[in-house]
This record gives sequence, C-alpha cells and structure tokens, in this order.
Amino acid sequence: MDLGPEDRLHRWLRQRLRRAGKDRLGDDGAILSRGGPWTITQDQQIESVHFPTGLDPALIARRLLAVNLSDLAAMGAEPKFAFLALSCPPDFPTRRFLAALIAACERQGLELAGGDLARNDKVTCAMTLIGQLPPGGRWVNRGNARAGDVLWLGGPTGLSALGRHLLERGGRADLRRVDPPNLPALTRTEARLARAAIRRHLSPLPQLELGRWLGRRARAAAIDISDGLAIDLHRLCRESGAGALVRAGALTGPREFESLCRKIGVSSLELVLTGGEDYVLLFALAHGERPPAELGAVPIGRIEPEPELYLELDGTRHRLERSGWDHFRS
Amino acid sequence: MDLGPEDRLHRWLRQRLRRAGKDRLGDDGAILSRGGPWTITQDQQIESVHFPTGLDPALIARRLLAVNLSDLAAMGAEPKFAFLALSCPPDFPTRRFLAALIAACERQGLELAGGDLARNDKVTCAMTLIGQLPPGGRWVNRGNARAGDVLWLGGPTGLSALGRHLLERGGRADLRRVDPPNLPALTRTEARLARAAIRRHLSPLPQLELGRWLGRRARAAAIDISDGLAIDLHRLCRESGAGALVRAGALTGPREFESLCRKIGVSSLELVLTGGEDYVLLFALAHGERPPAELGAVPIGRIEPEPELYLELDGTRHRLERSGWDHFRS
Repeated sequence: MDLGPEDRLHRWLRQRLRRAGKDRLGDDGAILSRGGPWTITQDQQIESVHFPTGLDPALIARRLLAVNLSDLAAMGAEPKFAFLALSCPPDFPTRRFLAALIAACERQGLELAGGDLARNDKVTCAMTLIGQLPPGGRWVNRGNARAGDVLWLGGPTGLSALGRHLLERGGRADLRRVDPPNLPALTRTEARLARAAIRRHLSPLPQLELGRWLGRRARAAAIDISDGLAIDLHRLCRESGAGALVRAGALTGPREFESLCRKIGVSSLELVLTGGEDYVLLFALAHGERPPAELGAVPIGRIEPEPELYLELDGTRHRLERSGWDHFRS
Repeated sequence: MDLGPEDRLHRWLRQRLRRAGKDRLGDDGAILSRGGPWTITQDQQIESVHFPTGLDPALIARRLLAVNLSDLAAMGAEPKFAFLALSCPPDFPTRRFLAALIAACERQGLELAGGDLARNDKVTCAMTLIGQLPPGGRWVNRGNARAGDVLWLGGPTGLSALGRHLLERGGRADLRRVDPPNLPALTRTEARLARAAIRRHLSPLPQLELGRWLGRRARAAAIDISDGLAIDLHRLCRESGAGALVRAGALTGPREFESLCRKIGVSSLELVLTGGEDYVLLFALAHGERPPAELGAVPIGRIEPEPELYLELDGTRHRLERSGWDHFRS
C-alpha cells in the first residue's frame, strides 16, 4: 500500500524504535500495563522563546528532553516513557530531531512511546514524561521543607543565563562546536567559561542522580530551577508554608564569571538570582544530612519559620523578592 | 509573598481545581499512585492549521479535548487525567480557555492534572490524556481486524470538512452562535446543515460510549478518523495485515449535503473519503456482531484477506488510495 509523507516518517520512526526492541506507536494510545506509582511531567520548548531560531535540531531535541528530565529529577523519579508533541515548518529536519531525541532517550533508559506531529510556522515542541517511583524511594515534594532545614543548590546558577546573553550577542553553537561572541580582550579562561556557559544554556544537565538520592532520604523538598533561583525558592517556600535565608556569599561564581558579566554589562548577582534555566535542583534537607560530595551540591542558606525570603549580603539582611534582590530594580 | 503573572494564573487554576476536590499542580510532576492499566494519547491543535485565527478560546479548548478524547474512544479507554501544554501570545484570554477546558474535563470525569504554559506567536496547544482500561474491558487495537469482519463507521464522515470549507468561505462561529457564509440561494434545510457542519468541525463529538462498547467485545479493531476515512482505513488495514472493501452507497449523506457540496464546488464523495477531522470511529467487528442502534453506527463494507483497499461504486470496484478514490486526481 502507498504511504503519505507523515506515514513514511511514522514508519521510519517505528523501525528506529524497534531496533531497541520498543514500538508502542502502532495505535491511538500507548499502553502501560504494569509498574508505577507514576509521576507525569510536561514542559515545552519554543523557537525564539526558549532557543534561538536556526538552532541545530539535535540540540533542540536534547534540550527538550533535558528540561523535562529535570522535572523528574525534582520528584526523585526514574524516567520511563516519553511522549512528544512536535509542530514545525515542512522543511524542518524532523528525522535529525527524532534520531537525536531517541538516542538521548536511550541513554536515560527512556522509551519514546507516542506523540503527535503537526505543521506550524515555528518549531514548538511539548514533551510529556512518565517517571516511576524507584524501589524503596519516596516522592520528593516542594512542600516538604521545614524550619531549620539546610537549603542546598545542586550546582551553580547564572551560568545558563550568561550563555543566553552570549548567544544574543552573537555566540554560535551546534552539536560539536561552540563559538563565543567577539568581545573585547577576552582572556583564555574567560573564553573557556563563555563556551561552557553557552553549552550549559543549550544542553542543561538534569540532576537525576541527585534526585534519586533525595528520594532515599526520610524527608526532602526539591524544585528544579527553571524560572530563576528567587522565583523557584518562593515556590518551594510557599508549598512548604515557610521562609528562607540565602547567603549571597555561597552563590558567588568563579572570578571569570564576574569578569565576563562585567564585560557584557550585566550584574552577576542578578544572573545568579534571577537568570533562570539552570535546571539544577534547589532542595532542603534536615540539618546534618549531606549529599555525597561528588554530586556537587552546596549549602546556600536555611529554611526559616516565617514566610519571608531574605538575602544575607555583606552582613546585612535584604528582602529577596521573586524578581531578585530588590536593589536591582531601584 | 508577591506573585508574578504566571504564578497568579497558576494559583487561580489551582483554586478552580480545588473546588472540584482536585489539585495535583503543586509540584514538578503529578503523581498517580493507583489504578491502571493505562493508555496515553497525545494530540495538538494549532492556530491557522487546525482552527481559524481568532476562534473563541472556549471553542479551542473544547476542540483540543475532543480530538484527544477521540483517541481514548478508539482504544476503548475511560478518560482519567489530562495534561495541557499551551503556548500563546500574551493577550490570549488564557483564563477563558482554561475555564472552558476544566468545565469540559469535568463533564467527562477527567482531571486536569498538570501542564505547562509558555509564550508563542500563535496559539499552539498539545494535550496528553491518560485513560484507564474499564473493569472487564479489553483494549481495542487497530491490528485486531480479521478477514470476513464487517467494517463499520460510527457516524457520517465529510460533515466536518464541509464545515471547514464553509468557515474558509466566511462562516462564523462562537460558543453560542453559528452563521453560515453568504451563499447564493441557500434553502432553510441547507442553512441548517451548514450550521451543523460548522459546529461539527469546531466541536467534534468523541465516541467514548461506542469505544467502551467495543472494549466489551471479545475482539474489535478501531481507529478514530482524524486524517480522513481513506488514510485511516489504510492504517487500520496495515496494522491488521488485511484489506477492505467499502460500499460507496453506504457513505452517502443527506440530500442537503450533496447540494451544499455542489454550491461550494467540492465533490461530496471526496469530502466523505478524504475530508478528515470527523473524529468518528472506524471499526471492524466479527460478522453477526452489531452495536446498539442508538450509537448510530452503520456498516460500510468488510475486511478482506488481501492487503488492498477497494471502493464499490455503481457496481464496479475501484482502487481506494490513501488520497481517496483515484479518479479524483485524474
């Protein structure tokens, strides 16, 4: 029987999945007969909103997966199934996108189990992930933080936003190569950090292992930082009915981070607090608990009983607004 | 604590859901602890591709839900959870869209359990639905058809495509009112059918009850007609490793359907075979099985052993291509 272009793509995709022994695409719905409990997360990536127009489709696919995996990490879940809703112009290299997505899924033990393809003016993709509670694990919830807990960050924030600024200023990247923009008198270590920032922005590293470790604690609260440390800390505290104190000194990046921020004219502390798209975990643990050093988390403050957020800077407490440290705006 | 516009919308949404005793939106993922087996479906609605620009957001929401429910109907599943990925311009009336979506979900016993909102130039929405196997039911699969089965259609096809043509010719509709376009000498019954066609196009009726009935058979194959009877019959036959013969006489619409098609200059048989977006079930049942009359299904042909599709028209067999009856193209 003859096949239209959509069915040809569908057949190619099913052959590709069958090679890995998996193919649930033959029906109107994918069936999950066993397993669970499950958690379901959903996140989108939109051209010229979340990633620059013309970005390598393989990088778009990886980023879409990474931001979704980060939600599973924040729940302490094991990635199991992925569903893709992709809409794009007819000339978008869909197979390159799908091949990269499937390869990235396989590296995580994830099965691409269904989805929908449609036409659109701009590349717009939404992913739904289904994660499983690991054996012996607990769900990690935003609302689990208690006054007296230590507040931790799974890695530095601000680097991804620096990468976004560098891309807006002419930085370029594909799957293999990253070129920082032409900035005056960039030192070698600054250029290296600039490349790392662009790479981090385009290919965030979801902290699944840290999430699983948190799920093995008696109690842990976590959120992944997508909109910015300040906003997402507000969310964690709101769900927990608590407040927090953050030490600015614990957030400082390397010297090159400071100097690069100066060279492009942005405040490094503003990037760290509000830059967003870091996809590291912000979490609260009972005093005395400490993640394994190799997971790279650092303590940045503590959970407080009153529902207010403060930033301790040079020995003084400042209100920490959702939009960051209020002095930015003044 | 202060709230940004996104968190304000989120809070409003959670309050709205809590009124129905449901709120799984407080975390990075929604948790399903019990139930199953599950089936997961995904479908998109995109402005100016699936619906006209400027369509009432309440109608967009209902259509998004309906096309997704239709996939669950084709699986014989019970709707349980909905996840929404919506991207839209900042001035899109998101609350009107969400209120209509939640109300429509509630009518189906569905819980809006998660999602993601983002900025985009055009309204682009993707929905993921999770359906449960009803007690005592079986999954209805595309690959279950066998030679000798009777082929059935859950309702007329072509009406939705007629509605699309009428909208392209100036027809207008919102939640309450439908105005057909100005066409020469439209009779009262034609005008009534024109309104019904536009309404059917914008608000398809997913056949969940028929799907559940199919799931209680010992064996049933089904697919919902989204891309057109001819294409979707090819898909059902391909998955079943079979062919089919369709009687054109069984597909004829009412007299006004024929005359309206003539007035707008489209072939009624082409609309019926290839118009698409009908969201009725195309299904195969063992000879002798017959759905309850009130479900409105009609027999349109039979499943044949050879993997070819034929249309019987005026006593002659014609090849039925994916694109429809091949004479259309000559």
